[in-house]
Amino acid sequence: MSDKKTAISPTRSENYSEWYQQVIRAAELAESAPIHGCMIIKPWGYALWENIQSNLDKKIKETNHENIYCPLFIPISYFEKEAQHISGFAKECAVVTHHRLEVNEEGKLIPAAPLEEPLIVRPTSETTMGEAFARWIHSYRDLPLLINQWANIVRWEMRPRLFLRTTEFLWQEGHTAHETEQDALEETLRMLDVYEHFAQDYLAMPVIKGMKTENEKFPGAVSTYCIEAMMQDGKALQAGTSHLLGQNFSKAFNIQFLNAKGEKEHVWTTSWGVSTRLIGGLIMTHSDDDGLIVPPRIAPLHAVILPVTHQHKASEAIHAYCEALANEMRSLTYHGQPIRVKVDTKDKNPGEKAWYWRKKGVPLRIEIGPREYEAKNVFLKQRDQANNQTQNLSKEEFLNSLPSLLDTIQKTLFERAKQFQKEHSKFIRSANEFYDCFKNQQGFAYTYWAGDGALEDQLKKEYGITIRCLPLSESENKGQCIFTGKPNAKVAIFAKAY
Amino acid sequence: MSDKKTAISPTRSENYSEWYQQVIRAAELAESAPIHGCMIIKPWGYALWENIQSNLDKKIKETNHENIYCPLFIPISYFEKEAQHISGFAKECAVVTHHRLEVNEEGKLIPAAPLEEPLIVRPTSETTMGEAFARWIHSYRDLPLLINQWANIVRWEMRPRLFLRTTEFLWQEGHTAHETEQDALEETLRMLDVYEHFAQDYLAMPVIKGMKTENEKFPGAVSTYCIEAMMQDGKALQAGTSHLLGQNFSKAFNIQFLNAKGEKEHVWTTSWGVSTRLIGGLIMTHSDDDGLIVPPRIAPLHAVILPVTHQHKASEAIHAYCEALANEMRSLTYHGQPIRVKVDTKDKNPGEKAWYWRKKGVPLRIEIGPREYEAKNVFLKQRDQANNQTQNLSKEEFLNSLPSLLDTIQKTLFERAKQFQKEHSKFIRSANEFYDCFKNQQGFAYTYWAGDGALEDQLKKEYGITIRCLPLSESENKGQCIFTGKPNAKVAIFAKAY
Repeated sequence: MSDKKTAISPTRSENYSEWYQQVIRAAELAESAPIHGCMIIKPWGYALWENIQSNLDKKIKETNHENIYCPLFIPISYFEKEAQHISGFAKECAVVTHHRLEVNEEGKLIPAAPLEEPLIVRPTSETTMGEAFARWIHSYRDLPLLINQWANIVRWEMRPRLFLRTTEFLWQEGHTAHETEQDALEETLRMLDVYEHFAQDYLAMPVIKGMKTENEKFPGAVSTYCIEAMMQDGKALQAGTSHLLGQNFSKAFNIQFLNAKGEKEHVWTTSWGVSTRLIGGLIMTHSDDDGLIVPPRIAPLHAVILPVTHQHKASEAIHAYCEALANEMRSLTYHGQPIRVKVDTKDKNPGEKAWYWRKKGVPLRIEIGPREYEAKNVFLKQRDQANNQTQNLSKEEFLNSLPSLLDTIQKTLFERAKQFQKEHSKFIRSANEFYDCFKNQQGFAYTYWAGDGALEDQLKKEYGITIRCLPLSESENKGQCIFTGKPNAKVAIFAKAY
Repeated sequence: MSDKKTAISPTRSENYSEWYQQVIRAAELAESAPIHGCMIIKPWGYALWENIQSNLDKKIKETNHENIYCPLFIPISYFEKEAQHISGFAKECAVVTHHRLEVNEEGKLIPAAPLEEPLIVRPTSETTMGEAFARWIHSYRDLPLLINQWANIVRWEMRPRLFLRTTEFLWQEGHTAHETEQDALEETLRMLDVYEHFAQDYLAMPVIKGMKTENEKFPGAVSTYCIEAMMQDGKALQAGTSHLLGQNFSKAFNIQFLNAKGEKEHVWTTSWGVSTRLIGGLIMTHSDDDGLIVPPRIAPLHAVILPVTHQHKASEAIHAYCEALANEMRSLTYHGQPIRVKVDTKDKNPGEKAWYWRKKGVPLRIEIGPREYEAKNVFLKQRDQANNQTQNLSKEEFLNSLPSLLDTIQKTLFERAKQFQKEHSKFIRSANEFYDCFKNQQGFAYTYWAGDGALEDQLKKEYGITIRCLPLSESENKGQCIFTGKPNAKVAIFAKAY
């Protein structure tokens, strides 16, 4: 395999969308299941999700939320209670109508025992939580109620794509209730900050915090906030959302509390979530034409050690050296966790093994042959660097620098993505410039916007361009709308998006 | 509340089944959802599940299994491939028949867009895994394939009971494929051992390993092994199962491999699982008439500290003392994890708070009033002891003994349950003795059994007695069947069961 230039074919520049599928296949992250739009998440992909989950769960608990588990099924009648919510989700709901199978005359299994009321497979749990909150909340002493849930979600997907759009996906959904609108808004923005930091510090994925337009907000929300990331093709990916639900759900589900004065009031609620979509974002932020690149903080393995023995007479000693090195590495910690390292002793060609782990994106690859063994050295390649770039360190030197080396890789990936985002972002001053901009290249176009939903629809329909958000960092920056000429317009970010 | 004798009403002896419900309510573990047979697992209950999950997951990974995630939905046609499997699960399958909702003329939401092939909501994933394994396995080099999944499961439940029988529950399901029957059998028994140790070492729940009869085995299995526990009413609880599936699923799903000689063979598979049912078992093994008792190794909190200040002038200093004590405790570890402790500063009556935490089963309750504060002492109550049994220790003494104190509680709970099981188990020598035994008391009846499935059915129907297992520890013990008089019969354990 040494004559190949890249492990992934096609390359990003040849066919970005197909490249994405091939990275997933090469890194063995997931595959399409034979069930419409569903995926099987394979061990390497699921290990990424476990690391996302355990680290984010810690942040969610540190901000005083408690985990619960609510039912998968939602009665249709719950769904009917919030009008916007229905119309937003009705088109993509899987519906359970029977609770038994029977064999018919032709020997085929058919649904039997129809339900009195059909059940929806949860596309999100505001309604279930709403019903429970109404039972749990009595007085202001019960507030804030801060709940989170890790669960599977079903939204029937017409154009499925692994990790980005799947009929079933995994996520966390936070649901909270507060005494005042201000408290709810603060919670909404607090969790947006948690998502921002998690995306940037763990996934090394730069994101922009902003507010969605009316057109793009969550069905049933007063306002939706989001983090938006830029993929390597310049398209945007909505990576997480945090919704201020106001009193919409508390009125629909009658969630009331007695305030300190003894008066009944409706609570103010929020909800917020991120999903396995983050893995899609991770792939498209960092990976290259050799396959996946994983930031150390969520890498299933920080390093892999390959004994290169060629049936050498010192073969056993080399293997022992590798195992000892691995154990020394495991005794070190990176961000409070033991270094995760594997010695790959599989009976395969060393070149094949090297490519295998490169495609999987392991941050550090260590090759130990007779020369390294004799010199007590470590021959090292970093996944964030070209494959022919190598380092030869003494074992001691390597072990001493290991945690900071991983940190450097983490930072490099972030800075590289940040730089890419910067280079593909532009502040647009006129409508002509706007359309030109999307003719020639992808990326984020910042501009003043005071248009309406109809104009937004038109841009989406004719050019495939959507407003990703009104960025919070530009909230003080006002100017003349380039489309309508209206003054005092806010800054919006336009982009094509996943 | 100080005049009450027990926190839970009715007591175990008054009405065991209602007591169980009331413990769940008092400890705020879970509640019935308004969806048929489903439950909402509340924070305290879910924290138990998280501790079960994280500890068991470690054992599953230590035995070289990798986690994946397979789809929630299973096409009916998959299910049709294994005849025993269908007939075992057909009666309890939730079926998705539509993938959209529409508003009808009366303004009601109704299912729309019927699916070409209805989907089953997974009652277990042998079929999905079978389809994937057939794609993943090519040669003996791909074996053994050792997979696990944490997921939600749906089996339509006619007589639901929180944690014990719910329409939806959470579980892990292991699925493995092997070259030989012997390898598969070893895996089946290895995971049974993992379950045994987990139940005994973490849940402090003594279990008996055994094999199920033909009547009681998993639909599609060659043989089913189980761990059986005894609840405080003498009834049995099947707490985990491990199935040798032979080549039943590999033939149904055509999972073949090329052996070392280059010949095609069908793999040998296993599957094994435990579920949120373990929480039901935990409750009924240890809890008393004051509520839940949780073994330290899976307790969400090891200890709670209650400042008892009565608006005392030293109130602030007492609170500071409590926080400092909590921090000192957190710097200690118990089985490799920091001690989990909470200072309950809620503005509530101290007696009420004490009962609150006693009902929740926290192993250690520490009360710090002016006297303890001044003497730098710790006033301590153990949940495994009567509420009027107390200890007064110097802070230093307490901190020094804390990990071993928790270990003692863990062991006490196990020994107590083990003793109960012993006292309620009997070796039966005749049919008369057998029927008498179940007239007067509950418990496990060991006896020689060589009956058939019809006799087993009759015992179940007429007396509600089932064979829990043929215990592995008695596999060499043979004698004359007390029902049929046949010689050389194996020992079976009979009991009423959940």
